[in-house]
Order: sequence, then structure tokens, then C-alpha cells
Amino acid sequence: MTTPTSTATLLQSLRQPILRELEQFNEYFRKQLRSHVFLLDLILRYLIRQKGKQIRPLLVFLSAKAAGEITERTYIGATMVELLHTATLVHDDVVDQAEVRRGMASIRAVWKNKAAVLVGDFLLARGLLIAVENHAYDLLQVTSQAVKRMSEGELRQMQRAKLLELDEQSYFDVIRDKTASLIATCCEIGALSAGASPEVRQHLREYGEAVGTAFQIRDDLLDFLSQPSILGKPIGNDVQERKITLPLLYALRTAPAKERRRVLKMIKRSQRNGKMFTEIQQFVQEYGGIYYANQVAEQLITQAKAHLATLPPSNARTALETFADFVLQRGA
Amino acid sequence: MTTPTSTATLLQSLRQPILRELEQFNEYFRKQLRSHVFLLDLILRYLIRQKGKQIRPLLVFLSAKAAGEITERTYIGATMVELLHTATLVHDDVVDQAEVRRGMASIRAVWKNKAAVLVGDFLLARGLLIAVENHAYDLLQVTSQAVKRMSEGELRQMQRAKLLELDEQSYFDVIRDKTASLIATCCEIGALSAGASPEVRQHLREYGEAVGTAFQIRDDLLDFLSQPSILGKPIGNDVQERKITLPLLYALRTAPAKERRRVLKMIKRSQRNGKMFTEIQQFVQEYGGIYYANQVAEQLITQAKAHLATLPPSNARTALETFADFVLQRGA
Repeated sequence: MTTPTSTATLLQSLRQPILRELEQFNEYFRKQLRSHVFLLDLILRYLIRQKGKQIRPLLVFLSAKAAGEITERTYIGATMVELLHTATLVHDDVVDQAEVRRGMASIRAVWKNKAAVLVGDFLLARGLLIAVENHAYDLLQVTSQAVKRMSEGELRQMQRAKLLELDEQSYFDVIRDKTASLIATCCEIGALSAGASPEVRQHLREYGEAVGTAFQIRDDLLDFLSQPSILGKPIGNDVQERKITLPLLYALRTAPAKERRRVLKMIKRSQRNGKMFTEIQQFVQEYGGIYYANQVAEQLITQAKAHLATLPPSNARTALETFADFVLQRGA
Repeated sequence: MTTPTSTATLLQSLRQPILRELEQFNEYFRKQLRSHVFLLDLILRYLIRQKGKQIRPLLVFLSAKAAGEITERTYIGATMVELLHTATLVHDDVVDQAEVRRGMASIRAVWKNKAAVLVGDFLLARGLLIAVENHAYDLLQVTSQAVKRMSEGELRQMQRAKLLELDEQSYFDVIRDKTASLIATCCEIGALSAGASPEVRQHLREYGEAVGTAFQIRDDLLDFLSQPSILGKPIGNDVQERKITLPLLYALRTAPAKERRRVLKMIKRSQRNGKMFTEIQQFVQEYGGIYYANQVAEQLITQAKAHLATLPPSNARTALETFADFVLQRGA
């Protein structure tokens, strides 16, 4: 395995082929995020300062460039996905009562839940409206489908937790809907904005679907690793919330019945404490859950790269390959 | 003033010209509200049982019929507005921690805030997606604009409460955005779905804007009337939340400076109790706030009817006139 590069350095290198465009994007994005309602404008300004890594717009631009040319429609598409992603984060923070987002106080922490729910709704409407205003109905079709899938994925995840569902199929359905659908959308609308052929569009979408799925698997896997500092968030959260993710699913499937029952009992009781979680970690490690999940993620990245290989070589294509590798290295 | 008819009886009479269509609409609506995610489907089924008065779909159908012919697109438009309206109610209940909606436990009360926020997002996406799937981009344009205005109106209302803004203009901006925009949208997309001329479309939109604004003024006014039983909710809520609505705005404007200062102090201290609110009620009554707000509402209804008068006579047009009158009688 290659030496892990820091996320910031790596993202910086991915931005290289499209530095100028991303600057213009930020300008465009800021212009879209204005309101004549003073309070709303204030919150939108705050959200702009709270800017994240902008992975989704990055994927839109790289996909457009890998598929052909960046166009005006690429900016529209990138703005849409960033608005919709931001909307879901603002709503997530309401739901999770989160105080902090991207190193700043969350919207709900500063302006309360009511404003946060409304701002989220505004961002959802604004994101879709940009497409309507620009008659970008093909981008709209793909993106509104993703918004629907994202909420379905989260709700399916709640259902799995409630019923303690243990089948792998429903796990994959959840992560494809809640995470991969928007990543795939980024790549597809990048291709669409560049006027790519249906084949290129499909390959980029499938690249995104595979990378997005691998991304979530790695995220779920990192929750079982022992150093909380890596993620910058506490470990074992998923188990506490009865989210049974791939490493644990696999371990439960391969462990002897008695072991399986013991661990399931621990999960059901939700008796989370350091000791219990350490036991679950050991269980997952012992029955090959970490190894298995890593393997699945690697296979997905191999598939993702195969889709890329159908495109002509370019520095944008190389950046998308690097991004795929980065997903596997993240937090390793 | 005519004898007030019960709301149920009146709505029943409004439905007469389009009974069959509304039945088909309910069938169509139910079909759109399915999901392969079990938990989500369960909540959607619950929402269907929690059916409200369906005033918005009613206005879509009546407008279509008044403008020409009900078409397949009328069903699409009616479904969109009902989905979006439901989405905002589900989110409102999260924001207000409401336990009850339409005589049943609210979604958030049964399935918690997390599910409610997600279901609201799903309904917003689903509402817009129906238009995309059916290539009804004109309906989408109008409707997504309304979603944006609804969240802006609510946020502006928060701002007014926070800063205790007292100008009438910003009050009207709030109620036009938060309430009238969706009512106007119902009438406009009804017209669009019937293939109406731009003039007819504009007249119906303005009818909706005026009726919707009057509707909210009456709602705000009823908050000052003394019999809680009329509204089925406690009175004086708005003042407690520092929502300074038209009757109070007018009274504050016309009262002598000393009186004005005294009442403003009461509002600022948010010392709501029976006695204080009774004093505010008396103040509003004494300085003509109730009378004034009623007059403004009546003027709006006159304007609304003038827009209707440009359409050819039909039983649908008559029903829209009756609806306008009903807005003035409500709770009287």
C-alpha cells in the first residue's frame, strides 16, 4: 500500500487540472446564494464561510473535463449538487442535534432548529430551481432522483436499525441510496454538461456509483478502527445506533452461532461502553470483518477504474483515478 | 353578512362540480405515494389516512375547469401541490414540536424528528420529481418558485419577530410568501394544465394571490378574537411568538404614542398571560385593528372576484367565488 498522503494535499492535487474553473465556480456559487430576506442572507453568508472540501463539485468538473469540455452547464450542475448536499447537512444537524459542522457552530446551534429546517428546504428548492431557470431538465431529472434516493436510504437505514436487519443486500441498498447516489449524480451530470455520449455518461455514472459505495464502506469500516483521532469523531457510534455495517455483518455471518448470539445480545442491549465496544471490535477483527470490507471496497475501486479506462487519457481522468485510490487510503 | 355555513358543508358544495375528478385524484395521489422502503411506505400510508381538507388540489381542479378542461396535467399539478404542502406540514411539526396534526398524532410524534425531517425531504423531492417525470416543466417552474418563497416567507417572519419589525410592507411580504404563493400556484398551474391563455393564467394567479393573502389576514385576525373554540387552537399565540400581525400593526400605528409604548413593552417582555393578552385584545379593538384588517381582507376578496369576472361563467367559476367569500366568513 502506498504511503497515505494527507487529505488536504491530495485534494489540492486533484484540483490542479481545474483550478481556474473551481475559482469561477465559487464566485458563481456565492452569487446564487443570495436572498433579499436579511436573516436568510446572513445564514447563507455563514454557510459560504463554512465551506467544506467541495468534493462533489470537484467530481462534477473532473467528470465534465474527462468527458469533453467544461461548459456553462457544468457550473449549474456543480452548484446544484453542492446546494443539495449542503441542504442535507443542515437537516442532518437538526436531526442529530449537532453543535458543530466543519469546525464552526452548526446552523441549528446558532439560529435554532426552526431556521435550520427552513434553510434546508430553501437550499433544496434553490438547488432544483437553478436547473429550472436554466432549462437544464436533464440535470434536474438526475439530481431530483438523487434527492429522493438519499432520503429513502436514510429511512431504510432507520428501518434496519429498528428491526436489526442483518442481510447484506439491504446494507448495500442503504449505502447506495444515501451516499453513492449523489456521487454518481455528480459524475453523470458532469458528463451530461459536457455533452458526452450515452456510453461515456453511463461509464462515469457507474464510476461514481462504485466510488461512492466504496467511500461509505470505508467510512463504516473506520468506525471500527481503534484510533478515534483518525476520523475526528468518536468510534463505535454506528453500533451504538444499531447501524450494523459491513464489517460486523460479515463477522456475524461467519462466526459460530454461540459467538453470534453473544454479540447480538450486546448490540440489542445497546450497552455501549468502552469495554463492550472493544469486544465487538475484537469480534469483527477475529472473524475477518475488517479484511472482508476492505476487500469489497477494493473490488469496487477496481470496477470504478475499469469504467474510467474506457475514457481517453487526460489529466482529469488521472485525477478521477487518484480520487478512487484516495477512497481506499483514507484514514488508513 | 351572510350566515356562516359550516366549513365542512361549504367545502362539500365546492367539490360538487368536480366530484368524480377528486375521487380519481385521490386514487392517483395514493399511487404516487408508494415506496419500496417499508418504513417510508408505512409513514406514507399514515399520511394518506391523515388527509386534510385538500383545499389546494381543490383549487387546482376548479381553476383548470374554470379556465377550460381538466387534463392529465391537472392531476399532476394537484399532486405536486398536495405533496409540497404536506412536506411543509411535516417539517412544521418538527419545528413546533407538535404532537397532533389533523386530529391524529403527528409524524414526528410517532416516528421522531429524524424520520419526519427525512419524510419531508422525500415529499419535496417526490413532488418536484412527478413534474420532471412527466416533462411538466412549466408546472415545475411555478411550483419550485413557491417552495422557495414559502421558506423565505417563514424566515422573514422569524426576522420580523426577532427585530420586532413593525412596518406593514414586511408583514405583507411575509404572508404573500408563506401563504399566498402556494395558493396562487394552485390556481396558476390549474390554468396551465388546462392550456389557458397567458391572460387567463395571470387572472387566476392573481385571484389566488389575493385570496391567499386574505386567507392569512383572516387567520391572523382570528388569533385576536376572544373565543378559543372557534379556531380549535389557543388564542394569542402570535403575540406570544412576537408575530406582530395586521390588526396589532394598525392599532400600534394609530394609537397615541404613550399607549403604543405601553403595549410594545408588554409584547417585548413576552409576559403572556390571560390578563395581558386581554389588554392587547382591547387595545387592538379600541384602535380599530380588527375593523381595519377585515377591511383589507374584504378589499382583497373584491379584487380576487374581479379577476374571476374576466372568465366565462361556469359552475367552477362560481365555486371559486364561493371560496373567496368563505375566506371572509371563516370563523366569523
